[in-house]
Amino acid sequence: MKATTREQKILGIVQGTRAKRARFRDEQITMAHGAGGKASQSLIEGLLLPALQNDSLAALADAGTVSLERTALALTTDSFVVKPIRFPGGSIGELAVNGTINDLAVCGARPLALTLSLVLEEGLRAADLRAEIEAIAVAAEAAGVQVVAGDTKVVERGHADQMYACTTGLGLIDPRARLAPSALAPGDRIILSGPIGEHGMAVMLAREDFALEAQISSDTHSLWPAVDALLQAAGPDLHCMRDATRGGVASALNELARASKVAALIREADVPITPAVAGAGELLGIDPMYVANEGKLLAFVAPDAARGVLRALRTVPGCEQAAEIGEIAAEPPGMVLLQTAFGGRRVMDLLAGDPLPRIC
Amino acid sequence: MKATTREQKILGIVQGTRAKRARFRDEQITMAHGAGGKASQSLIEGLLLPALQNDSLAALADAGTVSLERTALALTTDSFVVKPIRFPGGSIGELAVNGTINDLAVCGARPLALTLSLVLEEGLRAADLRAEIEAIAVAAEAAGVQVVAGDTKVVERGHADQMYACTTGLGLIDPRARLAPSALAPGDRIILSGPIGEHGMAVMLAREDFALEAQISSDTHSLWPAVDALLQAAGPDLHCMRDATRGGVASALNELARASKVAALIREADVPITPAVAGAGELLGIDPMYVANEGKLLAFVAPDAARGVLRALRTVPGCEQAAEIGEIAAEPPGMVLLQTAFGGRRVMDLLAGDPLPRIC
Repeated sequence: MKATTREQKILGIVQGTRAKRARFRDEQITMAHGAGGKASQSLIEGLLLPALQNDSLAALADAGTVSLERTALALTTDSFVVKPIRFPGGSIGELAVNGTINDLAVCGARPLALTLSLVLEEGLRAADLRAEIEAIAVAAEAAGVQVVAGDTKVVERGHADQMYACTTGLGLIDPRARLAPSALAPGDRIILSGPIGEHGMAVMLAREDFALEAQISSDTHSLWPAVDALLQAAGPDLHCMRDATRGGVASALNELARASKVAALIREADVPITPAVAGAGELLGIDPMYVANEGKLLAFVAPDAARGVLRALRTVPGCEQAAEIGEIAAEPPGMVLLQTAFGGRRVMDLLAGDPLPRIC
Repeated sequence: MKATTREQKILGIVQGTRAKRARFRDEQITMAHGAGGKASQSLIEGLLLPALQNDSLAALADAGTVSLERTALALTTDSFVVKPIRFPGGSIGELAVNGTINDLAVCGARPLALTLSLVLEEGLRAADLRAEIEAIAVAAEAAGVQVVAGDTKVVERGHADQMYACTTGLGLIDPRARLAPSALAPGDRIILSGPIGEHGMAVMLAREDFALEAQISSDTHSLWPAVDALLQAAGPDLHCMRDATRGGVASALNELARASKVAALIREADVPITPAVAGAGELLGIDPMYVANEGKLLAFVAPDAARGVLRALRTVPGCEQAAEIGEIAAEPPGMVLLQTAFGGRRVMDLLAGDPLPRIC
């Protein structure tokens, strides 16, 4: 019988709370409902899922699945409302292509086609629109995927911020992929494809709210080459993947721990981060673990495959600093625990509020 | 040698202009770029198509196509920014489901799956959101299709009007379908599935801008049952279909005439319209031919099949008043001519401006 430490008791209580399905009880929508934390969870689990229930949606993966005779397809959609629309390292158009491709990729799906739907604000400068359409074309070309359908709407001045973009991706699930949250097993290694927090920090610093200057660029790029390398190196030993976008690595880990009813144990010292992002996080009081990435994935692999996976991943451009950052454990189910650089251990929970609105 | 009448000369000039591809020369986006008329055309043909060029997009059909081994898929996307979000006969949620299903249907594609992406305004009442999610669930259930993936974003108060919704639809192209603008041939009959202008007029009258009261409800509903009946009745004699949404019957006919390089000759007296819509159009000075429908299609069929198609279509709920409204001719290519109820004949061109912004 285990000694009941103070930490375990706290975990026990939190865990009890977590076992319940989130309820949506708010009277109105707040910015927090868009932040990827607890309020978002209550909106999704408390309102959207019960109303639209079906197995594909309930899986809460990055893409839904559609079976067609012997072919398994993945379908994913994302609206982009990033502000400002251009920032160091990227722009809304590039983000709209890569973000959707990456949701397909981490479901093991090779992107087949994209659709693009734009909501434009009256008064948007044609040069700005042209630049974004070019960015979309270049990103799609780089990822080897075509925009096969589109739509444009215009709303009056003030009813959108320059432009919002919605992309939807159709992908073909790779026959090598055997991915599912339920495939996670205690002992699985957690691999992160590179340094965290660059996208969210780059967007924050591009706003004029902060008088902070730092050389941080968004990491927006397609993750399909990384996924392709992982599938090739690990095959069925690759158990699951997530891209760590809105809400950062912490939120992605929490969502997966919750879905798969296992725990994730993370070693803070092993998480790759640039000095610029770490410094900006400290100055702004924002934990980079919760800051969005737009070109980083988490891979969960069988222990024996970890070394080969890391070697393969590090040959992919943008993944040179891939690292093993922790492992899966059976207890406490649904939780993420962080072993801090100072030797302590704490729960890394979903955030309730929203430190970084509108970063994607 | 034909006598050159005044009308023919005018047509000749307009036709010359039409042969050129539309250029996008504006310095900024205006409401007209979202209206489905000439400005929209310049945005699409002058900017979007050249940048994102591929055969599927260039076809400018209501859905793009993706071939997968022996399976032909259709993919379509649409953003909905209708204002107000609820109106007699429907709401934004219902519209978002039916609008996208209908774009698939008129491409001969049976809807397989939908995705839903929401941009919510901070402060949106939870009850309003709940009502729209319910409307989406009910419309999807009625159409026999599931929402397999979703996304929500929140923007600050004032940066959206309550909510915008983007739906994307994946469909399986029916093996009976042999549809293409290029299949249109002189003599083909033009069938309209029911009375025009109800959706746009219902939304306009729901705004407080007009002190006009009339019993007009949106016609929003799924067109797949109508398409299924048409495919069954006509098979390969069904040459093409369009749904007459933004820009109405007039714009849909113009787009198709332009794409297929034939003329459409329409008999105004044969176009079904309710007295309420006709009266509202007269009072507001808006031609119902240009007013959006959300549950009406145009079908183009070989002459011998027209009678059987009409009979089959009229058995489908919502299509009881289907009518033959004109035919396809070889000359003048790319044009739509209207034989008016008074015996005259005039060009029914695309509109340059936007009498009805934000109706879908």
